[in-house]
Amino acid sequence: MSAIRHALNTRREDDFAAWYQEVISAADMAEESGVRGCMVIKPWGYGIWERIQRLMDDRIKAAGVQNCYFPIFIPLSNFTREAEHVEGFAKEMAVVTHHRLIADGKGGLIPDPEAKLEEPLVVRPTSETIIGDAMARWVQSWRDLPLLTNQWANVVRWEMRTRMFLRTSEFLWQEGHTAHADREDALKETHRALEMYRACAEDDLALPVVAGEKPENERFPGAVETWSIEAMMQDGKALQAGTSHYLGTNFAHAAGIQYQDKEGGQQFCHTTSWGVSTRLIGGIIMTHGDDDGLRVPPRIAPHQIVIIPMLREVPEDDALIAYCEELRTMLARQHALGEATRVLLDKAPGKAAAKRWDWVRKGAPVILEVGPRDMAEGKVAVLRRDALWNEANGKPAFRFVTREDFAAEAPELLAEIQQALFDQARARRDANITRGVTSMDQVAAHFAEGQKYPGWVEMQWSKPTGAALDKVVEQLKALKLTVRNVPRDAAPADGTCIFTGQPAVERILVARAY
Amino acid sequence: MSAIRHALNTRREDDFAAWYQEVISAADMAEESGVRGCMVIKPWGYGIWERIQRLMDDRIKAAGVQNCYFPIFIPLSNFTREAEHVEGFAKEMAVVTHHRLIADGKGGLIPDPEAKLEEPLVVRPTSETIIGDAMARWVQSWRDLPLLTNQWANVVRWEMRTRMFLRTSEFLWQEGHTAHADREDALKETHRALEMYRACAEDDLALPVVAGEKPENERFPGAVETWSIEAMMQDGKALQAGTSHYLGTNFAHAAGIQYQDKEGGQQFCHTTSWGVSTRLIGGIIMTHGDDDGLRVPPRIAPHQIVIIPMLREVPEDDALIAYCEELRTMLARQHALGEATRVLLDKAPGKAAAKRWDWVRKGAPVILEVGPRDMAEGKVAVLRRDALWNEANGKPAFRFVTREDFAAEAPELLAEIQQALFDQARARRDANITRGVTSMDQVAAHFAEGQKYPGWVEMQWSKPTGAALDKVVEQLKALKLTVRNVPRDAAPADGTCIFTGQPAVERILVARAY
Repeated sequence: MSAIRHALNTRREDDFAAWYQEVISAADMAEESGVRGCMVIKPWGYGIWERIQRLMDDRIKAAGVQNCYFPIFIPLSNFTREAEHVEGFAKEMAVVTHHRLIADGKGGLIPDPEAKLEEPLVVRPTSETIIGDAMARWVQSWRDLPLLTNQWANVVRWEMRTRMFLRTSEFLWQEGHTAHADREDALKETHRALEMYRACAEDDLALPVVAGEKPENERFPGAVETWSIEAMMQDGKALQAGTSHYLGTNFAHAAGIQYQDKEGGQQFCHTTSWGVSTRLIGGIIMTHGDDDGLRVPPRIAPHQIVIIPMLREVPEDDALIAYCEELRTMLARQHALGEATRVLLDKAPGKAAAKRWDWVRKGAPVILEVGPRDMAEGKVAVLRRDALWNEANGKPAFRFVTREDFAAEAPELLAEIQQALFDQARARRDANITRGVTSMDQVAAHFAEGQKYPGWVEMQWSKPTGAALDKVVEQLKALKLTVRNVPRDAAPADGTCIFTGQPAVERILVARAY
Repeated sequence: MSAIRHALNTRREDDFAAWYQEVISAADMAEESGVRGCMVIKPWGYGIWERIQRLMDDRIKAAGVQNCYFPIFIPLSNFTREAEHVEGFAKEMAVVTHHRLIADGKGGLIPDPEAKLEEPLVVRPTSETIIGDAMARWVQSWRDLPLLTNQWANVVRWEMRTRMFLRTSEFLWQEGHTAHADREDALKETHRALEMYRACAEDDLALPVVAGEKPENERFPGAVETWSIEAMMQDGKALQAGTSHYLGTNFAHAAGIQYQDKEGGQQFCHTTSWGVSTRLIGGIIMTHGDDDGLRVPPRIAPHQIVIIPMLREVPEDDALIAYCEELRTMLARQHALGEATRVLLDKAPGKAAAKRWDWVRKGAPVILEVGPRDMAEGKVAVLRRDALWNEANGKPAFRFVTREDFAAEAPELLAEIQQALFDQARARRDANITRGVTSMDQVAAHFAEGQKYPGWVEMQWSKPTGAALDKVVEQLKALKLTVRNVPRDAAPADGTCIFTGQPAVERILVARAY
């Protein structure tokens, strides 16, 4: 058995954080912009985001939610209306104070002191307050409810320590905002959004997730309930991949979102909000990436199949390109995973082997190489990104099939890769949740230094609140742990609370997290 | 002949500006947000933007341009690098000076003096400088060229007087940015983008436009050549609907975008940029709107066909809805104008007549009404939004056809409406361009107060530059006129310059403009 020479310099097991950065760079997904905390999302990274957007947007529209666009600027005073909300966000916002620049007389520019805004504007960190203002205008009667809106937008939360896709000052997301007649209907929407996120994460992104409710201390500022989907990264840490909030009537009171009910009385609406962001791309990298780079699930791959002709800058290249172009046409006519197959014929100059490794690092699900001999035999060489290596000889596991056979099998192959990536991730996730832990000593031992990728621990608790919860949070914090959520689908509690010794009321997942 | 009772209060001929605002409100497209100069784009307005985005993005991708995302914040110093560029933008930008808020001790919040940015950040008014920085990193060799990028983004230009869609402080757009090895290749791209805009405006939005070069004084700050498409609104004014700029090596020098040529020498790139924005929606309103509201061309209509069952809150409603649902399914299987037909079955509560007028004001291309009698006869009542009235009796021009016949004819009907809207707009445009004007007295008379919608005037000029051009601009400004562009497809000059009396070198279009 030969040693495999992987396409990246850093292996996951050696330095997971450095590996993550290398994947982003080697797959040409994003880079630092030079503007503090902001990244440039490059075509391959942005193409993945466009695919996520398309699939999520279809789900959002199918639920009857309508897209709108709200201002990027929020008047400062909006933030002081909902007390808990401002508490949660006040520390990290970009503030616009001037609307004009003038020359400083030394060849530079400065904000014009004459153009100072009377009220500073905040670049939206999230839009509950500004959308609440609109809802107050739009909702008059019970007939206007439910009001279901969403926007795709950029938001800014000033961050001191940033990491590409996971934590950046500016990021892209969608934020759903809905208003309902009562608690029941608002909770139904909170759970619909949560389930939509679970389905999109698992079916589209091949990210197995645990859906559940966040404990009190992890709630969105101003929310009554916060629900999340949590995904396990390959280092065992949790990534919060989407959240759905039931806001009660808190924001309705702050913004005056009221409706006349059927009996003519005035009622406050119950509102929700829910969002996912470009952070999902970080989750895809840390779930599906390997020591050769990224592996993109076929449903969200900008190109699902890349055809690389082995060009030699000779006249015979034309025939080879024509042969590949015919294959591209055959494949583009096929439907895989419910959509037309996305195929790229990569005719860029350069050696085929170098291009192959570029596409391996980017994680195109299927790479086809076609040389003059393949063409003569009517064949193509097929490389599955999710089964890259022939372990026996340490070489790429090419499979030679006829062009027609490949065209016929492509839809099934892509569906198989989509499923394989999900199955691998789910098996790893399931293997790394430790159950039956009943003491904090066990927890401490489990997460001790030697344990490199300790995964998650499920435990039972009595759902403490207030000061009792603060104490729990402190205990966990000392071990760099947090409560991820109370899994929606967990077994009922049947033991005692690991923190208080009282009878447990539910199970929680505890982990280190991004 | 009975008098028609139109669906709007304001007629175009009575007060075009008030009519414009009424359409936006009556069609529920957008509204003031309460944040200075920023609007809220509501579902029907945003749905039209999403359709424009989808169709334009397909064209952009087909040209090999790749979407990216660049930071919203641009360091202040970037703007001082390209002298002409800063000159053009310096007066109207939102400036971020702080990154944190703190309590003011009086229940409010203020920017934290401790969190003042060392260098203020500008909210992008356009992204040449920040994308130039990226290009300087990405381009090394001639092999990296051309570099073709685009982004869909929000931008901010502080405006004192705003008008929804036409001039708002924040607006949505796409901005293409490309780098090339030489002038020839960059000019080719400038013209490709211009032609793409013409095709999208005419074929997708049904907006007839004149493509041409802007005179020197109307160039984008820092550009060597600026080209535009200009559309004529129903009040005869021009709307600049898209621009494409050849930037020479100006931005390449400012940002250091250089490449090694085949001979090993260092060369500066030639760059381009091109954009269209939500302003296009203003153009659609002022081109296709009428005294009953908006008329949306089928290609960009979020719903092309709206089915309204005449519900009476009786048990028989179920059968009626089932009948309409079958029709919806039949229609949704059809393809019109190259895409699956977009059909809405409007089951919302309320009187059918009230809902009909809502959809008339919104401008859905085809409205179907179905009552119990229609169902009994297997029919539907068809209303074309672009041929709304029976002039003979002043009533809506319903046509009764069988459900099956309508399903069969729908694709052709939608194509016909798309073409009809374009033809009407083109005929009006062509009828309102006055040619053969040879003196400024004639121009003044043409645009005199009595002339309500004087349209555009074509004239010949000697293409003055510098101080001579300034004088021309002043002369026109006195009549509230500007040079729109030098039409790409105009006849050659054959006369004398209306301004200088010298031999003319080209024809220009002069108009009042938004």
